[in-house]
Amino acid sequence: MTFLNQKYQSLTPYTPGEQVDETEFIKLNTNESPYPPAPKVQKAVAEAAQKLNRYPDIAWSSVAKPFAAYLGVKEDQLFLGNGSDEVLAYLFQGFTEQGIAFPDVTYGFYQVYSELYDVNTTIVPLKADFSIELKDYDELTGTVIFANPNAPTGVYLSQQAICDFLERHPNRLVVVDEAYIDFGCTSMISKITQYENLFVVGTFSKSRQLAGARLGFGVGNKKVIADLNRLRFSLNPYNINALTQAVGSAVLQEQAYVNQTIQKTIDVREWSKQQLAALGFEQTDSQGNFLFVKHSQISAEALFQALRAKKILVRWFNQPRAKDYLRITVGTQEQMRVLIKAVKKILTEVTS
Amino acid sequence: MTFLNQKYQSLTPYTPGEQVDETEFIKLNTNESPYPPAPKVQKAVAEAAQKLNRYPDIAWSSVAKPFAAYLGVKEDQLFLGNGSDEVLAYLFQGFTEQGIAFPDVTYGFYQVYSELYDVNTTIVPLKADFSIELKDYDELTGTVIFANPNAPTGVYLSQQAICDFLERHPNRLVVVDEAYIDFGCTSMISKITQYENLFVVGTFSKSRQLAGARLGFGVGNKKVIADLNRLRFSLNPYNINALTQAVGSAVLQEQAYVNQTIQKTIDVREWSKQQLAALGFEQTDSQGNFLFVKHSQISAEALFQALRAKKILVRWFNQPRAKDYLRITVGTQEQMRVLIKAVKKILTEVTS
Repeated sequence: MTFLNQKYQSLTPYTPGEQVDETEFIKLNTNESPYPPAPKVQKAVAEAAQKLNRYPDIAWSSVAKPFAAYLGVKEDQLFLGNGSDEVLAYLFQGFTEQGIAFPDVTYGFYQVYSELYDVNTTIVPLKADFSIELKDYDELTGTVIFANPNAPTGVYLSQQAICDFLERHPNRLVVVDEAYIDFGCTSMISKITQYENLFVVGTFSKSRQLAGARLGFGVGNKKVIADLNRLRFSLNPYNINALTQAVGSAVLQEQAYVNQTIQKTIDVREWSKQQLAALGFEQTDSQGNFLFVKHSQISAEALFQALRAKKILVRWFNQPRAKDYLRITVGTQEQMRVLIKAVKKILTEVTS
Repeated sequence: MTFLNQKYQSLTPYTPGEQVDETEFIKLNTNESPYPPAPKVQKAVAEAAQKLNRYPDIAWSSVAKPFAAYLGVKEDQLFLGNGSDEVLAYLFQGFTEQGIAFPDVTYGFYQVYSELYDVNTTIVPLKADFSIELKDYDELTGTVIFANPNAPTGVYLSQQAICDFLERHPNRLVVVDEAYIDFGCTSMISKITQYENLFVVGTFSKSRQLAGARLGFGVGNKKVIADLNRLRFSLNPYNINALTQAVGSAVLQEQAYVNQTIQKTIDVREWSKQQLAALGFEQTDSQGNFLFVKHSQISAEALFQALRAKKILVRWFNQPRAKDYLRITVGTQEQMRVLIKAVKKILTEVTS
């Protein structure tokens, strides 16, 4: 016997990256930061723990006020989510009446949300070089969503191309998922007031070391934010717990630390690109905290397995256009040295 | 311009209880525990904070394993949510194909979820004494949900009445929302294996002092749990952050502390009932951590305002059958002494 509504019985849920014991594995599979959270985080959370008998601040003020100021937006242009996944889910649930379109190679959850909310969906192929061509979305209707830089490719689309599209389609909502924007690219958030149809999604999981705390955000015009809050107050008003608010607030006081870890990640990413190129890998010019690479002499799946046997975990997506590639999170310099050494050894074994 | 889907534009969101500065107010309006969280909570959360750069355990093992053992169920009969609100939302979204029925006076969110997910809904009036009569649900179809003890009335429905209904309707899902069960009543969780159509919802917010951490749960047959996980993995897989998992795990090691605070709450509740009865209040025999009271000489709204002026915050629901009553959270003994004194003074002023 099943009690589940018929329409959900054939859902294909998202497959998250494997969680493994870090004392055993080098974990380069879920685009986490390899650096610990900023120093103030621990103290902040211990303080917040004393008052957990009370409900969290429903306005998230200790995060929203300083963060809005940091972003240069007003508080009524900012929404916070239990991870950016919650923000994305609300967008698919509530802002897709005319349908939605997104690239064929992108964050896998978009397809899952489309199914969950039964949204009229158009999948638009990326160009051969994995770039997004927004002109391909011109003849469609409804909402557009893409990650920028895109995942798992790391390819960045210029602000100008996005602004041009926003101007051509003032009545279509354009969602730019900027989970990986901080690793060297320019955010669209500065354009929020200019374009009523622009909505930017972001997260504290990557550049701010808080994947475990679940703190995502959305920035948009205040009407869209008010509508998101209408959904929130109809589903789960206390969406951000008091501990997460405390660590979010603390990390915003540690921008210097965050900037240092971002710079380290960029440096190690570029070093890793060079090393992999020297080993004959083909790759995108990734602007995220990850690499997207393939090698002519070993399949991505075989390399994934060989690395796994050496206790290095990377991500392989068994999907038509991505299956020839591995996505490798940029770890610490030391972790990447170990990775490169392991890859070298595997390649030698394959070609000998 | 609005981008929100038409069907959501007329939603009536939930109205949460007011959050106020506790240095200024005695806060008896949202059924929180007046006691701080258990001692181990603070240490646990500080430790967890060090690893926040990693995603949380998607299987919530550090909570689910010991909690399932405590409840006497299997892990595959247990689901955890970002507050019980998330669990309830999934139930309304996914398990209501044949409609849903619930009492006219109950947790206000049920009506909001019904609207949000456009569920065919039947509202069944409570009896005059605010009790639930399950025979009134016999002729309906689909899911049944009620809080037990009910909120805001505090009235408890016997296990026997629920078991009888479960047996009469083996093909209808019966959701018992036990947010307030720990304050002296018997949970239905022991009946989970016996009745495939029973689902119990609970929370760590009330008896376990973790309202700020957002940790709710559901217990049911493993097929329903698997279906809930299917929805979770299609919406927000990492629903419980690492900090909340840490405090949930810690509080489960402190059952003696939890039991002490429960006993205090029960003692203070019964003392408060006597005091209010002596002042001429009419009330239900509330089994929750709150009282549901009215007085013939002053309207509930007027008493709410008079108490607010004295910096005591209680809850008044402006709803047809509840509007003559106040819901007063059971605070500490000292807080309730202050409340009783204030009420006495207000009544004297009204009748003089």
